[in-house]
Amino acid sequence: MKTIGVLTGGGDCPGLNAAIRAVVKQAIIYDWEVIGIRNGWKGLIEGDVEPLTHYSVSGILSKGGTILGTSRVNPTKNIEDLQRLRDNIKKYGISGIIACGGEGTLSAALALYRRGIPVVGIPKTIDNDVSCTSKTIGFDTAVTIATDAIDRLHTTAESHHRVIIIEVMGRHVGWIAMAAGIAGGANEILIPEVPFDIEEICENLKQRYDHGKAYSTVVVAEGAIPKEGTGFRMPEQEIDEYGHVKLGGIGYLLKDEIEKRVGVDVRVTILGHIQRGGSPTPFDRILATRMGITAVKLLKDEDYGKMVALRGSKILPVKLEDAVAKLKTVDLDLFDLAKTFFG
Amino acid sequence: MKTIGVLTGGGDCPGLNAAIRAVVKQAIIYDWEVIGIRNGWKGLIEGDVEPLTHYSVSGILSKGGTILGTSRVNPTKNIEDLQRLRDNIKKYGISGIIACGGEGTLSAALALYRRGIPVVGIPKTIDNDVSCTSKTIGFDTAVTIATDAIDRLHTTAESHHRVIIIEVMGRHVGWIAMAAGIAGGANEILIPEVPFDIEEICENLKQRYDHGKAYSTVVVAEGAIPKEGTGFRMPEQEIDEYGHVKLGGIGYLLKDEIEKRVGVDVRVTILGHIQRGGSPTPFDRILATRMGITAVKLLKDEDYGKMVALRGSKILPVKLEDAVAKLKTVDLDLFDLAKTFFG
Amino acid sequence: MKTIGVLTGGGDCPGLNAAIRAVVKQAIIYDWEVIGIRNGWKGLIEGDVEPLTHYSVSGILSKGGTILGTSRVNPTKNIEDLQRLRDNIKKYGISGIIACGGEGTLSAALALYRRGIPVVGIPKTIDNDVSCTSKTIGFDTAVTIATDAIDRLHTTAESHHRVIIIEVMGRHVGWIAMAAGIAGGANEILIPEVPFDIEEICENLKQRYDHGKAYSTVVVAEGAIPKEGTGFRMPEQEIDEYGHVKLGGIGYLLKDEIEKRVGVDVRVTILGHIQRGGSPTPFDRILATRMGITAVKLLKDEDYGKMVALRGSKILPVKLEDAVAKLKTVDLDLFDLAKTFFG
Amino acid sequence: MKTIGVLTGGGDCPGLNAAIRAVVKQAIIYDWEVIGIRNGWKGLIEGDVEPLTHYSVSGILSKGGTILGTSRVNPTKNIEDLQRLRDNIKKYGISGIIACGGEGTLSAALALYRRGIPVVGIPKTIDNDVSCTSKTIGFDTAVTIATDAIDRLHTTAESHHRVIIIEVMGRHVGWIAMAAGIAGGANEILIPEVPFDIEEICENLKQRYDHGKAYSTVVVAEGAIPKEGTGFRMPEQEIDEYGHVKLGGIGYLLKDEIEKRVGVDVRVTILGHIQRGGSPTPFDRILATRMGITAVKLLKDEDYGKMVALRGSKILPVKLEDAVAKLKTVDLDLFDLAKTFFG
Repeated sequence: MKTIGVLTGGGDCPGLNAAIRAVVKQAIIYDWEVIGIRNGWKGLIEGDVEPLTHYSVSGILSKGGTILGTSRVNPTKNIEDLQRLRDNIKKYGISGIIACGGEGTLSAALALYRRGIPVVGIPKTIDNDVSCTSKTIGFDTAVTIATDAIDRLHTTAESHHRVIIIEVMGRHVGWIAMAAGIAGGANEILIPEVPFDIEEICENLKQRYDHGKAYSTVVVAEGAIPKEGTGFRMPEQEIDEYGHVKLGGIGYLLKDEIEKRVGVDVRVTILGHIQRGGSPTPFDRILATRMGITAVKLLKDEDYGKMVALRGSKILPVKLEDAVAKLKTVDLDLFDLAKTFFG
Repeated sequence: MKTIGVLTGGGDCPGLNAAIRAVVKQAIIYDWEVIGIRNGWKGLIEGDVEPLTHYSVSGILSKGGTILGTSRVNPTKNIEDLQRLRDNIKKYGISGIIACGGEGTLSAALALYRRGIPVVGIPKTIDNDVSCTSKTIGFDTAVTIATDAIDRLHTTAESHHRVIIIEVMGRHVGWIAMAAGIAGGANEILIPEVPFDIEEICENLKQRYDHGKAYSTVVVAEGAIPKEGTGFRMPEQEIDEYGHVKLGGIGYLLKDEIEKRVGVDVRVTILGHIQRGGSPTPFDRILATRMGITAVKLLKDEDYGKMVALRGSKILPVKLEDAVAKLKTVDLDLFDLAKTFFG
Repeated sequence: MKTIGVLTGGGDCPGLNAAIRAVVKQAIIYDWEVIGIRNGWKGLIEGDVEPLTHYSVSGILSKGGTILGTSRVNPTKNIEDLQRLRDNIKKYGISGIIACGGEGTLSAALALYRRGIPVVGIPKTIDNDVSCTSKTIGFDTAVTIATDAIDRLHTTAESHHRVIIIEVMGRHVGWIAMAAGIAGGANEILIPEVPFDIEEICENLKQRYDHGKAYSTVVVAEGAIPKEGTGFRMPEQEIDEYGHVKLGGIGYLLKDEIEKRVGVDVRVTILGHIQRGGSPTPFDRILATRMGITAVKLLKDEDYGKMVALRGSKILPVKLEDAVAKLKTVDLDLFDLAKTFFG
Repeated sequence: MKTIGVLTGGGDCPGLNAAIRAVVKQAIIYDWEVIGIRNGWKGLIEGDVEPLTHYSVSGILSKGGTILGTSRVNPTKNIEDLQRLRDNIKKYGISGIIACGGEGTLSAALALYRRGIPVVGIPKTIDNDVSCTSKTIGFDTAVTIATDAIDRLHTTAESHHRVIIIEVMGRHVGWIAMAAGIAGGANEILIPEVPFDIEEICENLKQRYDHGKAYSTVVVAEGAIPKEGTGFRMPEQEIDEYGHVKLGGIGYLLKDEIEKRVGVDVRVTILGHIQRGGSPTPFDRILATRMGITAVKLLKDEDYGKMVALRGSKILPVKLEDAVAKLKTVDLDLFDLAKTFFG
């Protein structure tokens, strides 16, 4: 018999509870005990933990958020925290840790693994930017929410002959923008990976009007940036406490520019945190369930330093170091495909 | 046999197509012809019309927006436009007009009625601020969308121990904020009718944290204003072309204030135009259908200058002049009830 | 300080948890204690109870079902049960009981009130058949689910040129069928209150085909019955343990008849228990919240033997004996209105 | 310049319109013309066609069903039909055909290809049973609808302490049952590929009750069959015109058996045609869009006799003969995984 720990770190997203439930259920099959670690790595440093039983995870499969809470604490930032973390692992008899998170949480997992701590990772982030896995937990739900919003905005755009800009999440990658843009039939999609040309965009929008399509939908990832030398003013933006550009910057800038250049009425919607809340889609529930089970199996095999990944239709282990080596950016072939349908 | 006209004015909202469909279907029962007037009063001034048949309204019951388009043109602003409007009524043989809209459109309808034009009104606005009717078309759908958003944000608030502010529509009245706030279990609801006390709000939020509720949800109508003398800085806000405060003002101001005073992490979501898009709820479809039918019956009875209204469970005519005499503000008894549950 | 009990009886429906939450929250404002009675009257007979605190009702506003469980036990069926119920009221110091239920539960509440037990009722049933209130808790959600199903089936009917029959709940009344039928744009609506004429229905369906509408949607309440002498064979149906016709009877009978008479492909969907599950609509959440609060206020005023009711826009007390005197059947004016749009 | 034809055959499903739209948009890029063939192969035999333009496919991306209609006609059943089909291909100058369908439609496509007709296939079926592609268009939406139903039924099961059986589509394969069962947290999943043991199932359900879980959810594919010799009576079932067992057979049989053996209250929901209706999920819209584009590219390359398939994250051509060689049955490793969580 064995005791394992499970934690969720970084931004919350739909499907985390499904993963926690799968970990607990699979551990029970092995007759193991599970320690729930509260608020990411912070809980392991501070000893903020609780036992998780069959009962703890009853009814959480369909619930958004994470019953364990989350934080963005980096456990390797100082040596004292690291020591407290080691002490707690010993104190609670934890023989293996499953860390669900995005790039930050998984990088910390790798750093700990390199320091001898037995850890495996589960990739979750609505941004879908973790390498080596075709999908991360939460992405499908975020795309579904964003597409639903585009569907709604479409009717307003059409009734009012407007350009509607919808700003979705994605500071460094444009996966949500691209997927929701294709699914929602957007006329323009702007992603961080491909600097946009404001003149080209406005030209396309004008052409639509000239062709009698008196409305357009533009999906923009919050981290989209203009091509240099295209006359798009990108003023110094407000930066929040994490060094991130504040939400809503790019959408409103685009609005001003398009109104000036195209001479039409533009409205902006910043989708914001709605994208990461609520009940996960069946796709995310199944993905999270399979990943949770497989993560426990890796602990059984003492196959540490790995992340579970979706490869084709299979859930397979990959090296944590490969997974976090670089952000997984948008497949540009797919983006080109989407672009052929613009306008 | 008779020819009637139908138009939709002001902001678009879910249920307009259901109303248009009902008008056409009821007119067909009377063996009348229906002229669809494009883009509100503008279409009647410019003669931008199309005949509406059984076929035109097939399949539109569940669709958001308006197949007729909309605008905010006031037909009584100058005498030339008014004459063109009269000429077009004559030209197309229109013996009665059904105008679906909010306060602006209905006020114009009243002004035209007073000038001898045979018109009846149907109240639609997501804001629910038209007098003499307990509900307007579009309100139930807007509340449903806003509540769904609060449900989603709730899980994020809980997982991250945050205060989440959600700014909903409502420049002059707080119906959406109040209804969605009650339905979503908000901890604070801020509406234009009742100036808020920032100190009291922050005190309540602090108390929740002290009682172990490490997250809160605040629903704020875009037109909410602070009580005088409570130290809330309300800077000069950006005003858009219609003299409206730009979206997103109050939510971000509140965020800064709460973060400073309570010392917690706050996130803002501006729900925006999503609230007026997409498929109407069954409630709105039924309301719109019943109102559309009754409006045609009023034209049959030559009972002009009226608006159809929901009174108890019945659809009854009321005078347009009573309906637009003043905005219907939030029932403060109901708001007090909601407030008892805050915190 | 006072202790009150709350129970839910009869079929479960969305909004019960919202009502329980409101009862508990309002009682806390009065500094009262609340006893949750499990599984309807059964729990009061058996002493199966639990204290309900602020904590018990946290997060249940948006959840379907009932945290208290439910049953169809009649507490006045025998004198022993009644005595045990009295003993438990005494044992737990219950000075007032709030019973949420439909016709059965409310009739039992009345019977107990007549025997001196201090009780008030809250009307909930997806069937909307309780008198003296314009809506019951759960009805709006059931209509929303049924309408969503009709929307989905519509696309199949259209693609396959079929008649689609959708059988919804409603053994004695046709409220769900009528409302969802109007909202979903059904071509025929069959309700228990108005025996149907199969020849007329088939004639209408044929005419649609003749007019190029190669598909139709028929909404039928499970309790719909044929007009006598119209040649519709209504065989002896299977009766379940409650004396109810088994689900699915009428839908399949109609299918056979329509296929034979119209010569088209017909498909049947029995919506079943989906109609009573899942998250309540905002309308039901607000209605349940207001009713729960008002019920507690009635207990405060020692105004027993009443049921809270929606009258116009207000929640008001009515006599339990009036509420259960007869089933509230469909408003036939409204049904006639719906019928004008058939075909 | 070239003219191509597109048709949809077999049962309708969400995503067909997205595929048609993509075909038309991609063809327009190549400056080709597109002929829409009505009602599957039937339309090509009868010359029932219409030109499809940019305008024809505007706004259909999010709509369920198929604007082209569908049928189950086999074009190779007799030589006269085949000749008429050839004549129409010539008459309309069709140089390549894209056939969207399931096993029947694609088998016909293969048969025609072998007779020299230039055709490529797109796999769509909610059943997900076409070989060589990891997903078919429509499957994700069907699973989403079924999971939503299970979520709803779950609250009823819990409130009433019942066993709820939900019968989903799947005559020969259990993909929907398995996926929705995992996503909905079902306690038992019965699929055609693995004959069920009624004794084992009842034993599991009893154990849940003994362990205090007073409710259970059973998901059963309509084609599920009992293991031989397990005492489950499988009476002669009604067979419909296509040789299929009539819907609703197995669910009700199970209900009787479980009630008898376990002594609990059981309710059945037959999900039926709701599973194939309504707006497609973003997953299906993107899949359909990519497959539609790729199918047109295959016609450009004169690479006939192929089907577009989802392989990993890519859309690739596979041979039609491989795709229809056998039904793709459920991955039994995945099913075993699901089973470990039963109970």
